[in-house]
Amino acid sequence: MKRLLITGFSGFVSRHYLDHLKAKGEAYQVLGVDVNPPKFSPESYAPVLQIEFMSVNLLDEEKVGAMIADFRPDLVLHLASFSSVAYSWEHPAECFHNNTKIFLNLAEAVRAAGLMECRILSVGSSEEYGNVSEDEMPLREDRKLYPVSPYAVARVAQEMLAKVLVEGYGMKILLTRSFNHMGPYQDQRFVVPSFIKRIMEIRDAGRTEGEIETGDVSIVRDFVDVRDVVRAYDLLLQNGTPGEVYNICGGKGMTLRGVIDEIANLLGVEVKTKTDPSLVRPGDNHVIIGSSEKIFRELGWEATIPLEKTLKDMIVSMENE
Amino acid sequence: MKRLLITGFSGFVSRHYLDHLKAKGEAYQVLGVDVNPPKFSPESYAPVLQIEFMSVNLLDEEKVGAMIADFRPDLVLHLASFSSVAYSWEHPAECFHNNTKIFLNLAEAVRAAGLMECRILSVGSSEEYGNVSEDEMPLREDRKLYPVSPYAVARVAQEMLAKVLVEGYGMKILLTRSFNHMGPYQDQRFVVPSFIKRIMEIRDAGRTEGEIETGDVSIVRDFVDVRDVVRAYDLLLQNGTPGEVYNICGGKGMTLRGVIDEIANLLGVEVKTKTDPSLVRPGDNHVIIGSSEKIFRELGWEATIPLEKTLKDMIVSMENE
Repeated sequence: MKRLLITGFSGFVSRHYLDHLKAKGEAYQVLGVDVNPPKFSPESYAPVLQIEFMSVNLLDEEKVGAMIADFRPDLVLHLASFSSVAYSWEHPAECFHNNTKIFLNLAEAVRAAGLMECRILSVGSSEEYGNVSEDEMPLREDRKLYPVSPYAVARVAQEMLAKVLVEGYGMKILLTRSFNHMGPYQDQRFVVPSFIKRIMEIRDAGRTEGEIETGDVSIVRDFVDVRDVVRAYDLLLQNGTPGEVYNICGGKGMTLRGVIDEIANLLGVEVKTKTDPSLVRPGDNHVIIGSSEKIFRELGWEATIPLEKTLKDMIVSMENE
Repeated sequence: MKRLLITGFSGFVSRHYLDHLKAKGEAYQVLGVDVNPPKFSPESYAPVLQIEFMSVNLLDEEKVGAMIADFRPDLVLHLASFSSVAYSWEHPAECFHNNTKIFLNLAEAVRAAGLMECRILSVGSSEEYGNVSEDEMPLREDRKLYPVSPYAVARVAQEMLAKVLVEGYGMKILLTRSFNHMGPYQDQRFVVPSFIKRIMEIRDAGRTEGEIETGDVSIVRDFVDVRDVVRAYDLLLQNGTPGEVYNICGGKGMTLRGVIDEIANLLGVEVKTKTDPSLVRPGDNHVIIGSSEKIFRELGWEATIPLEKTLKDMIVSMENE
C-alpha cells in the first residue's frame, strides 16, 4: 500500500483530495499533518484510506525530519502554506519565511532519509506571473515571472528551490502554478466564499437587493474548481515530470464582478458593490488567465466543472454548515 | 553628517568601501555590524569616518529592529550573506533561510522605524542568471533568470522581495547583480585567493613548478576588482534608481585557467591543475559574462582596474599577512 503524506491536511484542498482517492477506490496509508486538526472525520475514508493525523509545526526542522524518517512516504502532497496575498502584505517577512522554510524542511528531510524515489508535489500559484500585460494571455509556463507580492515571491522562490533540488540532487519534485481555485468547504476568508457568505446574508435578511464592500471587482482571474485541481494533483504525483512546472487552470478569465453577478443570480438577489480602498492591494495585477495546454498535452488533464456548478455546490455546502 | 549602516562589516568589501569613503574625504557616522569583529581597525578611519562596531546576529528580528530604530540610518550597505555556492549545496535550507531572512529583517526594521527615505543597497549576484547559453553573453539585466544553486535562488528571492517592497511600500532599495569580485583582504576560502595561496606555497617551497587541485578550470567568469565594485556601490547609494537592478561587472570573460596562468606568471612558477571531482559543483553554469552598459549609461560607472593589477595587489597583501 502506498504511503502518502499530506501537509496542510486540514484545509479544503486536502479534503477534496481524499474524496478523490476514495472515489477512485485506491488504497493508501495516509499521514495527514497540520497545525490544527481537520473539521472533517478522517475515519470516514476507511477502509480505502487508512489515515493518521499528526499536529506538526513544519517550521520545526527536527520534528519534520523525525516524521519523514519514521513514515517514509512514497508520495508527498505539500499543500501547507500561508496562502493569503493580503496577509503577506501585512507580514511579508513571516509569510515569506514560513512558506519557503516549511518546503525546504520537508525536502531536506526526504533527502536526509534517503527517499530519493519519493515524489513531492510542490504547489505554486498563478500569482507568480505577476505583472503581465493583458495581450500576453493566456499565460504559458515559460513566461517570465514578475511577482508583485511577498506571497508571490515566496512561491517563485519555492519553485526555483525545487528545480535546483531536482537538478542538483535528482529529487522527484513536481511543480504547479495553481490558479484561483474554489469549491465547497473553502475558508470564508477567501474571496469567493466571502462573497457568497455576504450575499447569502442579504438573502437571509429577506432582502432582494443589497451592497457589499469589495476590493477591485474589475480584476480578472482564471477560476478553477478544486475538484478539477485535485484530479490534476493526483495525475502529477503519478505521472508528472520532476522539475517541470504545470499550470492548473481553467483557461478562461472572469471578473470578480462576474462572479458576484453569478452568485447573486443563483441566490435571487441584486448586489451592488462598493470599493473599500483598504481591500485594494498594492501592485495587484489586473488580469490573470492561464494556458493549461501543457498539462493537457502531457497528462490529458483539463478543467471540466463549469463555474455555475462550482458556485451552486459552494452555496449548498455553506447552507449546511 | 550622514548615517551609514554597513552589514557584513568585517568582510573585505566593507573594508574597501571604508577606504573609498575615506579617500573621498566625505564624513559619515558609520555603524558596522557583523557576527565577528573586523580584523582591521575602525579607528584608523577617523576623523573622516566615525565608526562604531556592534556584534549583531541579523537573524534576530528584535535586535535588528532595536538597532535600526536606535541608529536611524540614512543609508544601508547590506553586504552580509552566506556567499559560498558550495556551502549552499551542503546546507541549502540554512543558506537560503539566512540570506533571505536577514534582508527581510533589515527591510522590515527600516519600514517599522518609518525611515522611508532610507536608501538600502541590496547586493545580488551574477549567479542569479544561472543556466544561460554562451551565445547570450554579455548578460543584460532584463535576461530571464535560471538560478542553479540554492545560493542563487536566495539571491533571486532577495531581489524580487526588494522590488516588491519598493513597489508596494515605496521603499528606496537599490539592487545589484555583482559579478565575481576579488581584491586584497579577500577570504582565502574564495577561489582566486585560494589559487594565489597555493601557488605562493609552490614558490615559497623553492620550486619552479607544481600542481594544484581545482574544480572545473574551463569555466568562464567576469572578474571585477573590489575597488571598482565599492565605487559602484557608493554611486548607487547616492544616485541609483530604487527597484532597478544593476550589473556590476567588468564586461569581459576569463577562464579560471587563465587566472591561474596570470598568477603563476606573476609568481614566476609553472602550475598544472588536476580536477578534483568533489570541487565540481552540480549544475554549475559554464560561462558568465555581464554587460555593464546600464550602470555606465545611468551613472557613468565602468570597471577600470585591470586583472593584472588586482592579482598583483592581492599577492602583495597576502605576502604581508
